Amino acid sequence: MNRRRFLKGSSALAGLFTLGPSVILANDVETISKKAKKAKNIIFLISDGMSCGTLQMADLYSQHILGKNTEWINLYKENKVSRALMDTASASSPVTDSAAASSSFGSGHRVKNGVLNIGLNGEKYLPIWQKFKNAGKKTGCVTTVTITHATPAGFCVNSDSRNAENEIAEMYAELGFDVMMGGGDEFFNPSKRKDKKDIYKIYEKKGYQVLKEKSDLENIKKGGKTLGIFANGALPYTIDQNNIPELQKTPTLAQMSAAAIDQMKDHKNGFVLLIEGGKVDWAAHANDIAALIHDQLAFDEAVKTAIDFAEKDKETLVIITTDHGNANPGLIYGANAKENFDSIADYKYTNEYILNSIHADFNLQQIKDWVKETNKISLTDDEAKHLKDFYSGLEKQEDGLYNYKKLPFKAYSEIQKKHNNVGWISMDHSGDYVELAMYGPGSELLKPFVQNKDLHYLMLQASIEKES
Amino acid sequence: MNRRRFLKGSSALAGLFTLGPSVILANDVETISKKAKKAKNIIFLISDGMSCGTLQMADLYSQHILGKNTEWINLYKENKVSRALMDTASASSPVTDSAAASSSFGSGHRVKNGVLNIGLNGEKYLPIWQKFKNAGKKTGCVTTVTITHATPAGFCVNSDSRNAENEIAEMYAELGFDVMMGGGDEFFNPSKRKDKKDIYKIYEKKGYQVLKEKSDLENIKKGGKTLGIFANGALPYTIDQNNIPELQKTPTLAQMSAAAIDQMKDHKNGFVLLIEGGKVDWAAHANDIAALIHDQLAFDEAVKTAIDFAEKDKETLVIITTDHGNANPGLIYGANAKENFDSIADYKYTNEYILNSIHADFNLQQIKDWVKETNKISLTDDEAKHLKDFYSGLEKQEDGLYNYKKLPFKAYSEIQKKHNNVGWISMDHSGDYVELAMYGPGSELLKPFVQNKDLHYLMLQASIEKES
Repeated sequence: MNRRRFLKGSSALAGLFTLGPSVILANDVETISKKAKKAKNIIFLISDGMSCGTLQMADLYSQHILGKNTEWINLYKENKVSRALMDTASASSPVTDSAAASSSFGSGHRVKNGVLNIGLNGEKYLPIWQKFKNAGKKTGCVTTVTITHATPAGFCVNSDSRNAENEIAEMYAELGFDVMMGGGDEFFNPSKRKDKKDIYKIYEKKGYQVLKEKSDLENIKKGGKTLGIFANGALPYTIDQNNIPELQKTPTLAQMSAAAIDQMKDHKNGFVLLIEGGKVDWAAHANDIAALIHDQLAFDEAVKTAIDFAEKDKETLVIITTDHGNANPGLIYGANAKENFDSIADYKYTNEYILNSIHADFNLQQIKDWVKETNKISLTDDEAKHLKDFYSGLEKQEDGLYNYKKLPFKAYSEIQKKHNNVGWISMDHSGDYVELAMYGPGSELLKPFVQNKDLHYLMLQASIEKES
Repeated sequence: MNRRRFLKGSSALAGLFTLGPSVILANDVETISKKAKKAKNIIFLISDGMSCGTLQMADLYSQHILGKNTEWINLYKENKVSRALMDTASASSPVTDSAAASSSFGSGHRVKNGVLNIGLNGEKYLPIWQKFKNAGKKTGCVTTVTITHATPAGFCVNSDSRNAENEIAEMYAELGFDVMMGGGDEFFNPSKRKDKKDIYKIYEKKGYQVLKEKSDLENIKKGGKTLGIFANGALPYTIDQNNIPELQKTPTLAQMSAAAIDQMKDHKNGFVLLIEGGKVDWAAHANDIAALIHDQLAFDEAVKTAIDFAEKDKETLVIITTDHGNANPGLIYGANAKENFDSIADYKYTNEYILNSIHADFNLQQIKDWVKETNKISLTDDEAKHLKDFYSGLEKQEDGLYNYKKLPFKAYSEIQKKHNNVGWISMDHSGDYVELAMYGPGSELLKPFVQNKDLHYLMLQASIEKES
């Protein structure tokens, strides 16, 4: 189709047909293709831990409940993007963690799970946002988890451990990235850090404005360096933010993205921005379908923000993907699959909020009432008893990444599954090949099958590398 | 990239640049694009019930154990195909069954789960292989399940019930498709049919040669109408076929595909051929990872057969996809994910064969020995006891589609998961959007996001429809 469309649709080329000898034409064609090629700006969007079923169920929910496709799927329907399948493996495993995944984009090398841009023999690869900074571009990251978390860190710094978030907060200041927004007060606030260092003060001394609340985005000092830390740890899940008044002081991913673009878009050498929907991954780890869908939809709004900008700007490469699958959720066959799936629209809060609100002294009826109120699910006595056992100590508390409060995520998800038809393979990452879309100048470089590390070189080639 | 590559690479167009006025050139361009457009032949390959994790794990297994990528992924690496995501819903559910899925390709309409090309108001849509037959093309289907099963039937006939396989066997003869190969002796053989009808005789009277064994493929009467029924029900799983001598009389999917292409390729008006890897779906229903991977790899060989033909032929559209996800299997994160996954290479047989070989009078040691011999897995006493309980009646027998012998597929798969790191969301279909690839003339019509039913019209447009 590209060939035909190009032949039929390109008025520039139609003009060329009327010109003279072939030598001149070849030069003109070269000029046209070069002109179209360099990306002044890059926006890289990562829905962390998004399995293919996550993309599909967010789109299905959007169709059924909101009456429209997601932006991501619309980009396909409107034939606006290049697509690829991406192999997400790390150097140590066919199933990556977010640190190694991000490092592959960051360094162009596969590294071991757990490290940030450190090679197998200790090499310190220069992270890609530093390369772009050195090339004169503004650089930024926004995320719904801590700004020092593995995914933004993998674009920015070197570290033997993704867990060194205290140090990473300082490294960012040292390196001077332009716009960094997300959560993580615990790594910046002197009253929360073991070493009592006031990291905010370091940023302020370097001329950063520091934002703490959504309303600060409205009073932002245009164009200056910006640190926005909107929560102690990660930002709240979108579904909780939508329904719990005291959580509404934090901005959405789309709002942070719009602000970050706005802060950097007038820079003469352009900018690069990472946008991470970090809690899609956490929701998958928790097997929490409502949290997952609403955070994927919040990510989708950020996709729209990025594409809307890029469509006007015409010099921005937008990359939309994930770093790995997680839990491979899917809607399961059954007589009431549609109705059961649509019942997720009745869910008011995350499972974390629901389960954290249950206490050991709840009786069975109280548990049943609470689940009815928050999920419109009528528990059986056995189910209520099973849940209660996790609070009374009769069942062993659950562990799990990001399950800080040791809540019965798995047990509760298995109850929900009977009502919503959504299943999960585990509470951890998967090795699936993942979906990748690109829009704008540079997207013509995308091959249909890529390794995660290939994107490092694609970004450089698309924007700052000289033609050979 | 397409644009640049086309500009730089097309010698035909390079020639045009030196020619005269634009009017003549426009005509020439039109001619070039038209010449490339019509597909004389179509080969439609369906890996039934292939989730995205199935494609990925087959490729990972192929890389790790066989030292090469799968053909499907190679087509992407070599940039030879167009790709799309496909929405697989049916008229009655966001999660389709194989009958409704096949009917969407067959009729261009979404129908209710369970029926074959029958509309919501009883409309009988003319199935697409009949349309192509009417247009003068040869028509055929090959599958690893019964030839009368939902997927081939959806390309060929109308029926209120996919289960009417006895009737479907007769309909095929009536309609006179050219090459039909797969399993299903139970629906053709007078000694097995309730009505004692000899369906083979009907075919023979209509001039069909009837094949019963792999060796019959070598003595095939070239170009004539052909019925090949190689098993009572479905053909054996590939892994069992590879390791059990008495199952080696049945052909592989690739062998049937090559024979079918060979029977039809010299027809002056071309041919259409459906190739179904039907037992990929059955393996997913059984949560049997070794059966799944080996049948996906057998499907991949058929992909190679089709592409090899199409690359030489240059007039063949090849469509490679699935009809829906199933069980969303995936390799799960963990310290030994690679080693555990690679241990699947030690599995000798399907779980069906392994579990069917265990009997109620086995003691625990016998069960442990057998599992050790066939899967290299050392069961704990508890695990062996748990399995034994299904045979002694202490545990309720499992049900499930295609679990004819009520074997403990789920219980066994959960034991295997601890050793191979592969998880499943359920034992049934999923609503995931699925992967689709196209090669050859007509592939330029593919949009990046399609509904299953769109392929019906694409096939017609690619091959027999007049230009408007």
